[in-house]
Order: sequence, then C-alpha cells, then structure tokens
Amino acid sequence: MSILVVGSIVLDHIRSPYGSSEGALGGSAVYFAGAACHYAPVRLVGVVGDDFPEEGNEFLTQSGIDTMGLTRVAGKTFQYEAEYPADMQDRKTIRTDLNVFEHFRPEIPESYRDTPIVFLGNIDPVLQIEVLDQVKGPKHVAADTMNYWIHGHRENLIKMLGRIDTLILNDSEARELTGESNLVAAMKAITALGPSIVILKKGEHGALLYQDGDFFHVPAFPVEIVKDPTGAGDAFAGGLLGFIARCGKFDRRTWMEAMQHGTAVASFVVEEFGPAPLRQLDHDKIESRIARLRAMVTLP
Amino acid sequence: MSILVVGSIVLDHIRSPYGSSEGALGGSAVYFAGAACHYAPVRLVGVVGDDFPEEGNEFLTQSGIDTMGLTRVAGKTFQYEAEYPADMQDRKTIRTDLNVFEHFRPEIPESYRDTPIVFLGNIDPVLQIEVLDQVKGPKHVAADTMNYWIHGHRENLIKMLGRIDTLILNDSEARELTGESNLVAAMKAITALGPSIVILKKGEHGALLYQDGDFFHVPAFPVEIVKDPTGAGDAFAGGLLGFIARCGKFDRRTWMEAMQHGTAVASFVVEEFGPAPLRQLDHDKIESRIARLRAMVTLP
Repeated sequence: MSILVVGSIVLDHIRSPYGSSEGALGGSAVYFAGAACHYAPVRLVGVVGDDFPEEGNEFLTQSGIDTMGLTRVAGKTFQYEAEYPADMQDRKTIRTDLNVFEHFRPEIPESYRDTPIVFLGNIDPVLQIEVLDQVKGPKHVAADTMNYWIHGHRENLIKMLGRIDTLILNDSEARELTGESNLVAAMKAITALGPSIVILKKGEHGALLYQDGDFFHVPAFPVEIVKDPTGAGDAFAGGLLGFIARCGKFDRRTWMEAMQHGTAVASFVVEEFGPAPLRQLDHDKIESRIARLRAMVTLP
Repeated sequence: MSILVVGSIVLDHIRSPYGSSEGALGGSAVYFAGAACHYAPVRLVGVVGDDFPEEGNEFLTQSGIDTMGLTRVAGKTFQYEAEYPADMQDRKTIRTDLNVFEHFRPEIPESYRDTPIVFLGNIDPVLQIEVLDQVKGPKHVAADTMNYWIHGHRENLIKMLGRIDTLILNDSEARELTGESNLVAAMKAITALGPSIVILKKGEHGALLYQDGDFFHVPAFPVEIVKDPTGAGDAFAGGLLGFIARCGKFDRRTWMEAMQHGTAVASFVVEEFGPAPLRQLDHDKIESRIARLRAMVTLP
C-alpha cells in the first residue's frame, strides 16, 4: 500500500552538547517520508521556497519518495532554530521562521487522492481537515499534533480528531488535550474524541499503544549518546505506518510489530544530526535492533 | 531464603485529589516488608516511638514479619506529611518530623546477622554501612537512596555503593548521582561505582534493569486511578527481592521475573492510601497482573 504524508519541510539549525547542524533538511514530512520509504511507496505533499537546496531534493528523490506534491514557491523555506541544553531535556526554540509555510494550503494531486494510508503531520488542524476533504475514502488516517494546536486551536483540533483513526502524540500533549494527568486515563479519553488507536511517544521511556481496551508497550532502544532527538517522533511514525503499509493489514498483531519498527527506526535518527541516518538504513539494521528490543522485554 | 530489611517506619499523612490518610503506617521498611513477606521470611530492623499504634503492630505481625529487630523507644514515631497536586506530579513535602528516627542507629540482632539477602532502605548511607558492618557475608545486598544523600552525603554514599550488589533508584536520582542525563549512560556509570545490578524505578513508565551489559524493561501496570503513589517504590523492591529470596537464585532470568513481580506488587499499592493493599495481596492476584504485563510487551 502507498502512504500519503502532508507536513512541514524545514531547514533546521540545531545545537546540542554534541555538535550542531546548520540548515539541515528537516520537518515532519521529511523525517516521516525518510523512514516510511524503506517500507512502502511514499507520496509527499509540502512546500519549499526557491532557496531549497539541491541536497534536499536529492535526499527525497534518492530515497524514492514521490515529490510530485512538493510545491516550490517564491520566497524562503521554513527555517527552525533550536538548542538542547547540557542535560538534553526541554529543547529551547530560538527561531521559527515559517516563511513560505505560512501560507501553505495543501493541494493533493489528483493521482494521490486514492492513497490508502494518510499521515497528517503536525500542522494546523484546519489544513489537516483540508487534506481529508480532498482524499477519497482512505483505509487509515493517522495524525500528529502539538501543544500549540491543543491550546490555541482546540475547536478545529477536535473536529480533526473526529475524522482520523490513529492519533500519535507525546505525554504532555496527551495530558493537555484531555486534562487527565494519568496517561492511562488520558489515552482512553482520547479514543472518546474519535481515534480508535492512540499511540504515545515517550522518548527515552519508549512508546505505548492503546487499542480496543488493551495496551502494548515498546521500550526505547538503549542509545547511550543521543546527539539530536529532532525528528525522532516523525521517523517513529514513518517506521510504524510504513510497516503497516508494507503488510497491508490493520490487525492488532501488525500494529504491535509496527510499534517495534517505529521504535527501531527512530533510534537511528537520534544518534546523529539531521535525517542522514535514514538514508543509511536497511532492513538488516532495523531487524537487528528489533531483536534486541524483543530480548529487552521477554524472559529467555 | 530470608531477607533482612533496615529502613524507616513512619506515620504518614498524605493528601491527594483522591482523598487522604492521617497517620497511616508507612516508611520504607513497612512497604518493603509488607510486599516481600508474600514471598519469603522477612526480618525487620527499625525504630518507633511509644505512640506507635496497635494497628501498626498488627499490620506487621499479621503479615508474618519478624519484628524482633523493631525497637520501641520513648518519644514520637517518625511523622511525614505530604500532598500530591491536582496533576499528581511532584509530591510536595509539608512536614518531616524525624522524632525517634533522628537518633536511630541500627542494631542487627545476633540471630539476624546471617540473613542471606539484605535490603538497605533509603536512610543515611552511614547507617547503611553500619548495617553492612554487622551482617555476616550476605549473598546479596540491595540498597535504595535519594537525592538528599546524593547531594549532601556523597562521600558516604559512594562508600556504601562500593559494598552493595544492587542499587534501586529513580530517574532523577540516577542522573544526579552520575551527572549523566542519558539514563542508559547513567545506569552504566553506576555499575562503575560498585553495584553489578542497577534498577531504575520510572513510575508510570515502568522499571528498567541493567546487568552485565544488558537491559530488561517492564512497563508499568496500567492503573487508571493512582490515588497515592507513596511507598510504591519500596513495595516494588519488596516484590523484587522477595521473589529472588523465594527462588534462592540470582541468575539473570530470575532477576527478569523478579522485575515483573515487583512491578505487579507496586501496582496494587498505588490504588489506595497506605499499605493496606499489601495485606490483601495473594499469589493469584499477582500472577494475574504479571500475565497482563507480559501480554503488554509480547507479540501474540
């Protein structure tokens, strides 16, 4: 099955105690697509400016990502600057220049509209809904969001949630969305808003799936030096939905395996700055980490 | 095998959005012993004042805990008052009256000195060392600690760590002890200080074992209403070491199973105020939660 992703394409400037990146390719659509493309055909919708570097194009096309839905317009590409402190907790945003992304209205090419799996990256819920208005009966829609939309655009966010199958978000977002501090209660409460599947990204604590009253947990792969966590959440979603797309199945066991794939793929991303680790991925590398993840939770 | 526990015995006054307890039996030795006694004979060393209520004695003796090492002295029992805020994060301590505990010096009865498994509850590392000076070649020593000792009594803490086999602590304690923000790196760094096993208690995110270069993870049991997390960490340690004592084995597989037992036992404690859930425990209840914990991480 193919996957349609709609999200941001960004030039990232990230500093951490382990180094920095200057104008590295980033954004939710890039990390998602760069991960999912190892599993299934990926169709990307997004916008860049006329300054978008040739390396960016190369990353996407050499990854085999369908970029017919990538629009290039006059102006500058979305730029994001952030810094991780010495303890690597709580990334500090220094600059968010939306540039051409400010007026982005997703237009889904006619040939993309019957894509069976849709991933709505973390963008304005109004735009996420516009995507859903254009696609034709997808088999599965998953979305990401963030505190900014939960606080300031709640009404639209709730509308969007009523139209998707899976919501992927982090702890604090789940708490803020539901007002439930208990994560178990929060995940259950989210299913009352629409999605039948809720997936919590817990960073160093792993990821948790809630579906049909049951939980499934995958620990984080133990990475000793996390250089740059930027994009790991989107790469997780890409590995997860990529695996689902490859299997073409939506049963519970497939979701469980998909959680392990998403976790393994994301673990490579945090080891370096930018999305380069995604280009170097192969199935042996992924399977090797999944084997270790399984050994971490199973009695011998 | 028997277990010796040395720790605090406290009268707890706890408030949370779900209710309160006034002068409920608490402290590290109580929660540990109340959990471990379901698995193996437990010998307790601690101190209470002459105000210690009869219900406290009953809890210990009816649990089959050996209280020959419990000293009753003139004065008041250790009193602790704390409050959990609406979001149940970051317990706020309101009052810590050490009372008779202030001058506690553990005296290990002669008949306890050859106990094969020793648990040093979270007390002054000087006292933890005094216990180790009195016991005779235990097979295994585990200890707990807290930020207070890590900050202000580091030198003694490091001495203590050089003499134990297992350290059980939480995320922030592991970070502060080692200066490593990355938990994987922090756990490895702790083994360089002495303990061959490090166990992280991560609350709602579960528990993580590090031993011989390998990790083993158990998710938290999904409890939807956590009324009072006080004592859960000590109950976890009690279930963990209780299981080890019952098996009389220290191999890796036994530690893995013990992690699941500790997790299951602790999950009952957080559901009510005080240690009462430990009195109502039985092996069927524990095994039933362990079966769910295993299903939460294993592909069907």
